[in-house]
Amino acid sequence: MTLTGKQIIQGEYTAASKDIFDSLSAGTGKPLGQTFYEATDGEIDLAVEAAFEAFKPFRDKGHRARAAFLRTIASEIELLGDLFLETAANETGLGLDRLKGERMRTMNQLNAFAGFIESGEWVRAIIDRADADRKPIPKPDLRQMQIPLGPAAIFGASNFPFAFSVAGGDTAAALASGCPVVFKGHPAHPATCELAATAILHAIEKTDMPAGAFNLIQGRSTRVGSRLVVHPLIKSVAFTGSFKGGKALYDLAVRRPEPIPVYAEMGSVNPVLVLSSVIKDKREATAKQLAGSITLGSGQFCTNPGVILLIDQPGNNEFLEKIGAELDAITPATMLTKSIGEAYISGVQRQRQIPGTKSLTIEGAEGIVSNMVRISAADAMRHPDILEEVFGPSSVAVVSGDMNELVAFCKTLSGQLTATILGEPEEIENASEVVDVLREKAGRLIVNGYPTGVEVSPAMVHGGPYPATTDSRSTSVGATAIYRFTRPICYQNFPTALLPVELRD
Amino acid sequence: MTLTGKQIIQGEYTAASKDIFDSLSAGTGKPLGQTFYEATDGEIDLAVEAAFEAFKPFRDKGHRARAAFLRTIASEIELLGDLFLETAANETGLGLDRLKGERMRTMNQLNAFAGFIESGEWVRAIIDRADADRKPIPKPDLRQMQIPLGPAAIFGASNFPFAFSVAGGDTAAALASGCPVVFKGHPAHPATCELAATAILHAIEKTDMPAGAFNLIQGRSTRVGSRLVVHPLIKSVAFTGSFKGGKALYDLAVRRPEPIPVYAEMGSVNPVLVLSSVIKDKREATAKQLAGSITLGSGQFCTNPGVILLIDQPGNNEFLEKIGAELDAITPATMLTKSIGEAYISGVQRQRQIPGTKSLTIEGAEGIVSNMVRISAADAMRHPDILEEVFGPSSVAVVSGDMNELVAFCKTLSGQLTATILGEPEEIENASEVVDVLREKAGRLIVNGYPTGVEVSPAMVHGGPYPATTDSRSTSVGATAIYRFTRPICYQNFPTALLPVELRD
Repeated sequence: MTLTGKQIIQGEYTAASKDIFDSLSAGTGKPLGQTFYEATDGEIDLAVEAAFEAFKPFRDKGHRARAAFLRTIASEIELLGDLFLETAANETGLGLDRLKGERMRTMNQLNAFAGFIESGEWVRAIIDRADADRKPIPKPDLRQMQIPLGPAAIFGASNFPFAFSVAGGDTAAALASGCPVVFKGHPAHPATCELAATAILHAIEKTDMPAGAFNLIQGRSTRVGSRLVVHPLIKSVAFTGSFKGGKALYDLAVRRPEPIPVYAEMGSVNPVLVLSSVIKDKREATAKQLAGSITLGSGQFCTNPGVILLIDQPGNNEFLEKIGAELDAITPATMLTKSIGEAYISGVQRQRQIPGTKSLTIEGAEGIVSNMVRISAADAMRHPDILEEVFGPSSVAVVSGDMNELVAFCKTLSGQLTATILGEPEEIENASEVVDVLREKAGRLIVNGYPTGVEVSPAMVHGGPYPATTDSRSTSVGATAIYRFTRPICYQNFPTALLPVELRD
Repeated sequence: MTLTGKQIIQGEYTAASKDIFDSLSAGTGKPLGQTFYEATDGEIDLAVEAAFEAFKPFRDKGHRARAAFLRTIASEIELLGDLFLETAANETGLGLDRLKGERMRTMNQLNAFAGFIESGEWVRAIIDRADADRKPIPKPDLRQMQIPLGPAAIFGASNFPFAFSVAGGDTAAALASGCPVVFKGHPAHPATCELAATAILHAIEKTDMPAGAFNLIQGRSTRVGSRLVVHPLIKSVAFTGSFKGGKALYDLAVRRPEPIPVYAEMGSVNPVLVLSSVIKDKREATAKQLAGSITLGSGQFCTNPGVILLIDQPGNNEFLEKIGAELDAITPATMLTKSIGEAYISGVQRQRQIPGTKSLTIEGAEGIVSNMVRISAADAMRHPDILEEVFGPSSVAVVSGDMNELVAFCKTLSGQLTATILGEPEEIENASEVVDVLREKAGRLIVNGYPTGVEVSPAMVHGGPYPATTDSRSTSVGATAIYRFTRPICYQNFPTALLPVELRD
């Protein structure tokens, strides 16, 4: 398969600009030999117009046809074969095993949404029948269902080149709902993006979907994404990435003449509360598991455990030193991009200089090494920048003097994707005050597990209060992720023949 | 019962300000003899802090206790007796019969939410069990439910002093979800607000709810509402009223350090499409019914039919003249406030001066008279300000040359609360192109009915695309209105004993 480096609009490859950029190797930062064309303003507009034109026919295809479309995307992704894996490996530095797993996850997501919409139950139909005899006035027939909002602008994440990118969960959810997609390719893996887009194109052809149901635009500059988000025909935005990027898109969208919803998942520090029984009875095993979670994917997960919460107690030192030793023993792999690697190193340096921190991992080493520092809750509250996310294999142990200080510290936490509690059930019940505080801060609460590894499940919430996301009412993983792209409508007194099929008796 | 004119914070009456304002008669604009204290910044903060302090205990009371609370509010509202009706009649100019109906509706809403939350099913539990044998890794146990966001800021509407005010639908939905409320009383009916608040206070005492679960602040200045919305402990905003007011609150909320959702229902012009069979066979009856809908409540409903859509055809003149004659025959009642009356008169004058309009009702009369003008679709598209809402008994007939022009005109409509189609089923099916356009514009589609009269039904959608509301994903009437005040949370691998009761096996 030959890559073109072009935009894909309504099934056509276009390149109106002379402004080009390279696909780069994550490992070396050197060009991989494929150039990409920066989308022009005109191309961005054409892509949105194509999506808008496709909206009605795509929506009217119905759930079964769209389910078949999603399943065909999944099989076309698999058909991309080793080229897809190798291209992503070169662009992201992620290992082939990890990428194989992520590809499987991506296919699972597409198939899960296909299964979810197939029955039609997903529209949340509410049927309230007429009552002609009601006094003082007859009651009308009222029927509610969810309908798609219209063209969605979706942005890929650097850390999941398959599962949160072109054919990832956001695209799957939007297409499942009946919303056409304009996808802004990630400049850190543009070749991977184009390959995934060709898979979707094949699926469009094979299942006879309108060509504009999916469009890809590429670019490095913020102009591309900004123009996309402010286009009047775009009706929602989904994004996974940095706080800075997500917040910028949110600010643009809420200032439009017609404001639109923005679902930006911007990561968090994912506190892990370690209770006394763990320090007493499961110190070694837990230290090893935590170190594994901190370094998984070189720590480049949104749910990476960035804060370990402890109460001052005997055994803490041994526990933390064990984590430090484990971290030192794990060689982190290449970071996703050169600039992410540089940002990680400077983040670690910044963190280690905060007053009151004590380093638990090797200091002064060159390049990417895992990082863990320890700090008292009192010092952490004095220096709240200790809680700024350091994207990579890094974590901070915050030690409180007692349960009251722990609760007070947890109240200072901002919104989180996850909060984790390790301990015996009875012990957790006794800690209900702090669990309660954590519940109000997080989208997902985990007992005796680790936050990394976001299960693709109907019940998953991958979201949380701001600034973990811009909309705590939503999730970007799981069946209910579809409702980011829909709104309710009510049909009053419609004759059966005129009702959508999902609302008929 | 003696009114105080004070704020009600955590069950206490306070008045820290010397800045006072009067409760005014809608009919005469003269003071009714009760003064009210403008809430100070300090009082607003105290009210929010009281709501925040009440959040955990109120939420933890559980659904059954909160259902009893809502039912008790309903019965306390009834116990306010004639004083409540008469106070509202004086302040709003609405008739006693209308107010009796609205009181019944208000009680129905409270009781409906009580019934909705009682079973616990409202939390939308999704249970996805563990699978220890799954390969390559075991599947965790995941359980999702909706939880309340925290203190809600709610603003009452001038046109529904009971049903969209202190003890109205927004308050009922927020309290049902477990969110404490800080209510900003409407300055056009502050005495009615205080009476309703005392009913809620009694219910708090009788059902042993935390005192801060409901708080009332009063004021005329925009400072009061603005300070409330930007308070960091406020987690959502609900509003019914003008575009200007709703948009201002939205702009404040999205610019906060922590943005929060705003559900502002800001009205619309509610197009009514009249198909040929109606003009041919049901001209007289439909004209009469439409005139009734236009003048219901002196046209002061958010769902007032402000645009009548027609295709050029024989009989249009007679139909429209008949509506005009019916409108002339109905004497509109007092408007809600003096300034609403003045805005209505200047709106009518503005509309009648738009080039291409032809008046169908009496011109040049003094005071409030019903208004209807006719304009061609071509002229209406040249002068889009013809579609600006004139709040009151006013409507515009837009006549298109043919179906193509009608479709083109409908595409220029902005977001609407409702769209109505009058005609025979077969005729409506043949007009599917225009029905489809209207569907994308509206929150509720009505066949052979009228948009006024918003049924309190689980299936109701009282909402719609911007600028009808600031959030098309929500409704302010009906069972699903509760989800404006909630977010999902996921519990992973929780022992049964530690799970919320709604998520246990």
